[in-house]
Amino acid sequence: MAQLQLDPTERFLRAARGEPVDRAPVWLMRQAGRYLAEYRAVRDGLSFLDFCRDVEKSVEVSLQPLELVGSEAVIVFSDIFVPVPGMGVELDFAPGPVVADPIRSAAQVDRLVVPDLRESVPYVFEILRTLRAELEGLRIPLLGFAGAPFTLAAYLVEGRGSRDFAQLRRMMREAPDILRALLAKLTELVVAHLEAQVEAGAQAVQLFDTWAGLLTPSEYREWVLPAHREIAAKLPRAQAPLILYVKGSSHLLDLTLESGADVVSVDWRVDLADAARRAAGRVSLQGNLDPGLLFAPPELIAERVGEIKAAGRAARGHILNLGHGVLPGTPVEGVRAFTQAARSAAGDAP
Amino acid sequence: MAQLQLDPTERFLRAARGEPVDRAPVWLMRQAGRYLAEYRAVRDGLSFLDFCRDVEKSVEVSLQPLELVGSEAVIVFSDIFVPVPGMGVELDFAPGPVVADPIRSAAQVDRLVVPDLRESVPYVFEILRTLRAELEGLRIPLLGFAGAPFTLAAYLVEGRGSRDFAQLRRMMREAPDILRALLAKLTELVVAHLEAQVEAGAQAVQLFDTWAGLLTPSEYREWVLPAHREIAAKLPRAQAPLILYVKGSSHLLDLTLESGADVVSVDWRVDLADAARRAAGRVSLQGNLDPGLLFAPPELIAERVGEIKAAGRAARGHILNLGHGVLPGTPVEGVRAFTQAARSAAGDAP
Repeated sequence: MAQLQLDPTERFLRAARGEPVDRAPVWLMRQAGRYLAEYRAVRDGLSFLDFCRDVEKSVEVSLQPLELVGSEAVIVFSDIFVPVPGMGVELDFAPGPVVADPIRSAAQVDRLVVPDLRESVPYVFEILRTLRAELEGLRIPLLGFAGAPFTLAAYLVEGRGSRDFAQLRRMMREAPDILRALLAKLTELVVAHLEAQVEAGAQAVQLFDTWAGLLTPSEYREWVLPAHREIAAKLPRAQAPLILYVKGSSHLLDLTLESGADVVSVDWRVDLADAARRAAGRVSLQGNLDPGLLFAPPELIAERVGEIKAAGRAARGHILNLGHGVLPGTPVEGVRAFTQAARSAAGDAP
Repeated sequence: MAQLQLDPTERFLRAARGEPVDRAPVWLMRQAGRYLAEYRAVRDGLSFLDFCRDVEKSVEVSLQPLELVGSEAVIVFSDIFVPVPGMGVELDFAPGPVVADPIRSAAQVDRLVVPDLRESVPYVFEILRTLRAELEGLRIPLLGFAGAPFTLAAYLVEGRGSRDFAQLRRMMREAPDILRALLAKLTELVVAHLEAQVEAGAQAVQLFDTWAGLLTPSEYREWVLPAHREIAAKLPRAQAPLILYVKGSSHLLDLTLESGADVVSVDWRVDLADAARRAAGRVSLQGNLDPGLLFAPPELIAERVGEIKAAGRAARGHILNLGHGVLPGTPVEGVRAFTQAARSAAGDAP
């Protein structure tokens, strides 16, 4: 395998599909973000949604992690809530998402529309097309993404972020039909959004289910897994592999492995070697350094990355990443140490 | 349970035995160490072994973590190699342990003696007695410790620290009887050493098996588990509970849970909630924050400690600690944030 000469796009796509590679590719969730002075400079003064709508600036910050921290993939700069206003939901960031009129009734769900995203959020696809043109020569892979139905529903029902999502839990118990209808509409939205991103040039897509980790395995099987499977079944995965990320899901690992996604992205609480054994060649794995470790000295980061790479070798394919997004305030040197260690031979196949 | 008023010694011993407590007690492996300027000031100019032999200084640095970082237990300042020269092994620190004449033959094993530790290392017990007198009024528990037979054998056979312990592995294959004889002698040494520490005032003891994590489960079952069980069976555990720490042992967790120890200390690669399920009430757990996270901002440390405390509630008892020793260069504020978060209510039973 050491003889393989792969460009970053080939390496990424082959790792996602479990084909032989020279080494694990590396990128970081939230790699374009506030921890970079260059990001803050570009964003200066813009609200988050206005920033997402600004094609030129979004392209610029999407590309920053290539040179500044040595990432090997670009993910389109956007937000999981970007497609939501087009459904007829009034939404603001303060700074977390706040829904003016939380969805609690069947009538509200009925009124939600699944828009043609090319019309409701054309800028997302313009950003993608621009990025793809920029990246083609570099042979750097371009990723799209979307929030998963359960996570979007959690915010729409609750109205805002929450530690326990009490309203959502009440709806699960007391009005399951309303929640099912909401999830169905959001699943349709997500499929349409990811399909359109692939059409605009995304070569892989990641589904973020940030809040599904709150559930027990039986709740997850009922409320989350069906949407993941539907999304995996409907997407053109031969064209663009699907990566699934569920935060805080170590107790749900066996269920995430059944999602139909090509890659399961695991957080830092998961023992990657154990996950590889349980995946048993069905899916590739992505992850999983604790983002808090990027504050540690470079030698320690390199040591941990070496351990993760060694563990990842037991998977059919491994994409090196964090277990969650880069944290605000993270030293850039720590992020660079991470990508450098990824490129070094430690932990690679002999 | 919230009504319980426990002093630190009661809290520690009850947690170790799986009896109800108000909250998890907290201490840190290698809490008295180079990361503390006050430690460096006391040690200044002394070689490591001379430092271990200096009763006054060892007492002083053992106590430093109480006030300086808010630890709730004191572990005697010493080293796992302190009892080894008394066996007839010439040993130096450079700075890791280096054995002048690595043990490779049956004749060498035969020549090893198990000394009366009260005579060969009297200072260890004088340090313990002094500490116990100091701590009695504070009701802070005092811990003793020893290196486990396999880890000591790894150094004695290899001659020094190693990444792969090739000589040791060769002995496992080619001269298993020699290794078995060596482990038997070291097991005798460890039991005698821990017994004498309990006699001198240690209220709990920890067995460090730093290198047993190198083994596969079947190797571990053959070469490590019997010694652990023998030690657990022979120690006066009703008087002083036994804590077992095996670094890098997530793949060996089920075997560490069978060791007969009262507490299994797990490293950061283990999912503590999963470990609690697998322990199934047989043992208490200790751990398991990644020491690299002590470089992160205090809020992040508090968040991770909250997660660990919440996970630890599924165990029959939980002692909050790191997954490995405090690293040199660790900011003292990070260690303080750890003990403060341990004392706060986050993650405690409602």
